[in-house]
Formats: sequence, C-alpha cells, structure tokens
Amino acid sequence: MPSVNDVATPAVLIDVDVLERNIARMAERARAAGVALRPHAKTHKLLEVGRRQLAAGARGLSLAKTSEAEVFAAAGFDDIFVAYPVVGADKGRRLLALAEKIRLAVGVDSVEGARTLGDVFAAASRRLDVRLKIDSGLHRVGVLPEQAVGVARAIAELPGLRLTGVFTHAGHAYGETRPEGVAAVAQHEGKTVAAVADALRRDGLEIGEVSVGSTPTAREAMTVKGVTECRPGNYVYCDASQVSLGTCALEECAMTVVATVVSAPAPDRAVLDAGSKTLSTDPLRPRGEGHGWVIGRKARLSKLSEEHGVLAVEPGERFRVGERVRVLPNHACVVSNLHDRVLAVRGETVEAEWRVAARGRVE
Amino acid sequence: MPSVNDVATPAVLIDVDVLERNIARMAERARAAGVALRPHAKTHKLLEVGRRQLAAGARGLSLAKTSEAEVFAAAGFDDIFVAYPVVGADKGRRLLALAEKIRLAVGVDSVEGARTLGDVFAAASRRLDVRLKIDSGLHRVGVLPEQAVGVARAIAELPGLRLTGVFTHAGHAYGETRPEGVAAVAQHEGKTVAAVADALRRDGLEIGEVSVGSTPTAREAMTVKGVTECRPGNYVYCDASQVSLGTCALEECAMTVVATVVSAPAPDRAVLDAGSKTLSTDPLRPRGEGHGWVIGRKARLSKLSEEHGVLAVEPGERFRVGERVRVLPNHACVVSNLHDRVLAVRGETVEAEWRVAARGRVE
Repeated sequence: MPSVNDVATPAVLIDVDVLERNIARMAERARAAGVALRPHAKTHKLLEVGRRQLAAGARGLSLAKTSEAEVFAAAGFDDIFVAYPVVGADKGRRLLALAEKIRLAVGVDSVEGARTLGDVFAAASRRLDVRLKIDSGLHRVGVLPEQAVGVARAIAELPGLRLTGVFTHAGHAYGETRPEGVAAVAQHEGKTVAAVADALRRDGLEIGEVSVGSTPTAREAMTVKGVTECRPGNYVYCDASQVSLGTCALEECAMTVVATVVSAPAPDRAVLDAGSKTLSTDPLRPRGEGHGWVIGRKARLSKLSEEHGVLAVEPGERFRVGERVRVLPNHACVVSNLHDRVLAVRGETVEAEWRVAARGRVE
Repeated sequence: MPSVNDVATPAVLIDVDVLERNIARMAERARAAGVALRPHAKTHKLLEVGRRQLAAGARGLSLAKTSEAEVFAAAGFDDIFVAYPVVGADKGRRLLALAEKIRLAVGVDSVEGARTLGDVFAAASRRLDVRLKIDSGLHRVGVLPEQAVGVARAIAELPGLRLTGVFTHAGHAYGETRPEGVAAVAQHEGKTVAAVADALRRDGLEIGEVSVGSTPTAREAMTVKGVTECRPGNYVYCDASQVSLGTCALEECAMTVVATVVSAPAPDRAVLDAGSKTLSTDPLRPRGEGHGWVIGRKARLSKLSEEHGVLAVEPGERFRVGERVRVLPNHACVVSNLHDRVLAVRGETVEAEWRVAARGRVE
C-alpha cells in the first residue's frame, strides 16, 4: 500500500479513522436527542462517505443542487432532501424524474418559485414534497417567521405540491467569536423554526419535518423542543474554521492537504505547491488571517495564488525545498469541490482513492 | 441550436467572437514587438482555446503544473513551458516521459529543486531545458536579480539540465491602482529580466529566452529591449479585475456566468443560484468590494456562499424570482477551474460545449 510520503503532491487526504469517529459521534447525538439525522453531503460529495453516514443511522442525505441529487440517486441513495430553493421548469422536470425513483423533498421560499416546480408535477398528475425555508437570522434566503403563515398557505394551495415541513440554516453562527454566541444562535435557530411549525399547524397545515442545520449549531439546536431533524455537513471533516469556532479539536479534523515546499527564497518565506486551486481563497471563520494552518510548524499560509501557497515563516523555523508538510484548510467543503479525487488514509497508509462523485455539480 | 436563455443555470459562457478578437489582438501585439507569444493556458485550460492561440501565431503554451502539461501534450500540443519551479523525482520522471514526446522547458528557482529533476534526466542520459525564475518584485518565488548569476551558474553545472533562459512574472501589477503604476511595473519587469540575462551571458552562459508574463503588463513589457517572449494568460477572457485595472474594456470580456434569481426575500436583496462554487471567492483587483458584476443591472454581488450569490439591490431596481442575469466574474482563471465544461456562444446562441480538459490538475 502506498504511503502518504510517496503520493504526488498536492493531494487531499481523508483520515478514515477520524472520519468514522466524527460520523459515529454525530449519529449518537441525534439518537440521544431523538431527532433524525440528514447530513448535508455537500461537504464531501462522496458516495463512500454518504454510505457510511447511512450505515451509522442517518435517515437520508441533504444536498444543495438538483444535479448533486441526481448523482447520489443514480448511485442508489433513495431518500434525499434538496435543501435549496430550486426554481424553474427545467429543474422541475429533472426533479420529476428523480421523484419517480427515490423519496424526494425540495426546498422552496417563494410562491413564484414553488409554482415553477408545482406546474411540472401537476401536469404529470404528481405531487412534489416541499419544505418552506425559514430565515432564522442568516438573511440569505428564506421567509421571515412573521411572513411564514401567509407564504406557506399560498404554497400549500398550489397544484402539484405537498408542503411537508419547514427548515432553516443558521449560517450566521460562523460569525460568532464566542461559544456562548454560537449557543445562542443555535437556541434561536431551533426555537424559531419550531414556533413557525406550530403556527402553521394552528393554521391547519400538516407540518411533519422541522429541520435545523449547520455543524456549529447542531449539537444544541437538535435538542430544542419541536425540532425533528438535523442537517449538519462539515462535521465529517471539520477544518480550521471549526477549530477556531470551538466546534471541534484539531485531532477531530479528518481532511488535510499534503504539499511540497517548492521554493524557499528568503528566511521568512517558503512556498508550497498548494495554492487557491487546492485550498480555495475562503477566509478563516469566525475571523482571522491566513489560508490554512501548517500542522506542527511555526508558519502560516499568508498568501495564496492559484498554484502557490506562500508561507510566512517565523524566526527559528526553516523549510527545505522538497520537504512535505500537511495543511489544515480553512474550509473543507470548498476543498472537496476543487478536487476530482481524495485519498482515504489510515495513519500514513493510503487505503483507497475516492472519486469526488458530485464535484462541480452546480446546476 | 440552443439559446443561452434555455441552458441549465448556472453556466459559464464564453463569447467566441470576443475570445477570437482578444487572441488576435495579443498575437498582433507580439508580432509588432518582435517577441514570441507563449500564452499561459491556466486561464482557459481548454484544448479549443489553446489551438486557436497557436493558429494565431503563438509559439507554444505556458502551463503551471506537470499534470496540466500532460493533458495538453496528450492532445497534440508539442511545445510547452511549465512556468513553475517543479520539484521532486516523481515529477522529474513524468517530465522525462513528456520530454520524449514534445519540446519541453521547465522553471527552476533553486539548486536543490533543480537537482531533483536533473538527477532523473542524467540517469536517463538526457538533459532537460530549464529556465531560471527571476523575482522582479512580486516576492513570491524566484531568485533576486543580485543572486541570479550565482544560482544560474550552480544550476548550469548540474548534470541532466540545460539552462536555456530566464523568466519572471510581475503579478504585483494586480495591486496597482493607476495605469501609470501598472506601466512602471511592466517597465521594471522587462528591464530586470533583460539585465539578468545580460549578466548571465557576460558570465558565459548561453541564455536564449528572456520571458515576461501577466496580462496587465504584457503590452508594455514585451517592448522592452532584450525581452524575447511574453506569457500573458488572462487576456483571452479578461474579467472584472482587468476592467478595474484598465487593461481592457467591459466589451472585451469573453467570459460571463448566466445565473437564475432563486429568491428575492427583501426589496434590497436577491439571491442567484451562482455562489462561490461557480464564481470563487477571489477578490476584485486591484481593490474593491463584491464578488462580480451583474451586467446592466443596478446590483452587486455583496456576499457569496457556496451555492448562493447574494445581490445588494439598489433602490428602484427589482429582481424577479426565475429571471436570468449575466455575471462578470472577478477572476476568470479560477472560474475555469471550478467547471467541468463551458459553453461556447456567439450572441445568444450556444455553438458548442467545451470540456475544461485540464481542470483540477493540481500536481
């Protein structure tokens, strides 16, 4: 079996032992909280990891795009929630084909958008399960809680649709600099969506799933009364941002990048063969400088261009041209999307090469 | 033929008329300046565009990574310069295989790094053409001009190598906020590398190619006495950063992204189905806010997450859920690397789908 010291660099490594512990831990938390786990597979985009999540007890997967759902459905995954306000008749036709094969639900956040899907299903005498997105504070997509009853009622009356749930994503937790701040966001996330579900039920709607998401808030939000489902994604790998947020420890990070020092032109500067094409330019959350941490070394990635990772080297530290280092990325999900394959490792041994099956599926 | 109004969104569009004008214009400039043009193909990673560049008179292509060179060589491109300090025996073996098939040169910037390649070629009784990278002010990789003679002499004495040229990249031009600033960087770029070449020749080394690069500096740097080759990349597409820098006009941008409004939850906010997975989080150069321009509309992309492009909508402007917009990205090169395919269009008509053949080749 090849060693990580022999693979061509840069390469993305997934520590399978850490990965499996992360999967088991979140599954156990969901069981203890009495909620269904529906991990967001955007983090890994891998069939191999999705299967491990289901084997550990996940009810199904969440995905962002129709084309990602197509990849997982074609591989046998039969219960998928597209947690995104999908819009358009062309996407509606693709969802109709998917709904023939698997248990499918899709996000909506407007009457106009929902109608584009409902019309396609109604014309085929079918109904699509949809969930209404609630804005619990991120202010990206979703309806505000006070508007939810009106929008939900209008969507529920559209032909071709069955409104079965509500969902939210408290992504603003990634901006919180203190653990208490993250916990407060999580409580608000759970309570907001549970209160909306209650209001819709009082209005006569049959709301089944009440779904929260995000790795920083998952642990707390899933325990809020009325929440039935949790959709964290990043927890399988974690990254420098999760460590900074206090969501996990460094040892709980499963994804690293092995890179080679290709240049050491000054005592305070060395350059890796891993740049933004390998690590992305996503910032460190909740705040902070740099583009990833060099594990165990006194240097930080101060600047990235596409193929160059520039290290600011601290006094007393030295990097030799040709030596290998391991980098912990700022944001694991976007790294997955940059690479056609990742290497599954245990310790220093490469056990398998996994194809990133749903990489680059933007539609 | 399909229309851009019918394709699944988001999708990357390449305006072939604009592309071909950009290719012809740079080729004409190089002819007028009497230098060879060796475009950096990292911008497009497309065989179809590389072939058009050669047909317009380019001598060969520049690429950043060994694996990218392998893709183009396999497709019949027979003259490639890997403009990157490649390091390691494993890469050396791959370069040896390439050099059996095509005219190949590779960048070096250290004796230690160059030796890892030279040893492989020497063991095969072959010699690899290498060019020494000169740091003309970017302070990323490359040797400082005052160190060039010493390093060049040591590299020239290594077995398995033939030092045939010098090259530089004035990427710091992207930080200049005034056209005169860009012009000054370009002059310095050309003069620095030409002076180094003269010094090496005085030292008895046979230096052939004296190569400059970068789209903002190309026009000026290629006219500097002693420069023999120019390696711009971005000029084929241009992007919002080039427009900001004054390198090109908006009408000279060949790459746009067509996206759909999926949510319009507030009067001052709309959300596109194109986020960082489509556009990247690369900043606008030389400075400025936002993640790309919405062409012809009063709105800017104020925030990106992976699948969401959040528009800050100006008063009086309105976006409807379901409508399509065109986005000019901040940085075209990184957009190419995110997508498996792009659509070649003339006007509103999609003429072809081009596979991004060298996408994701990080090694």
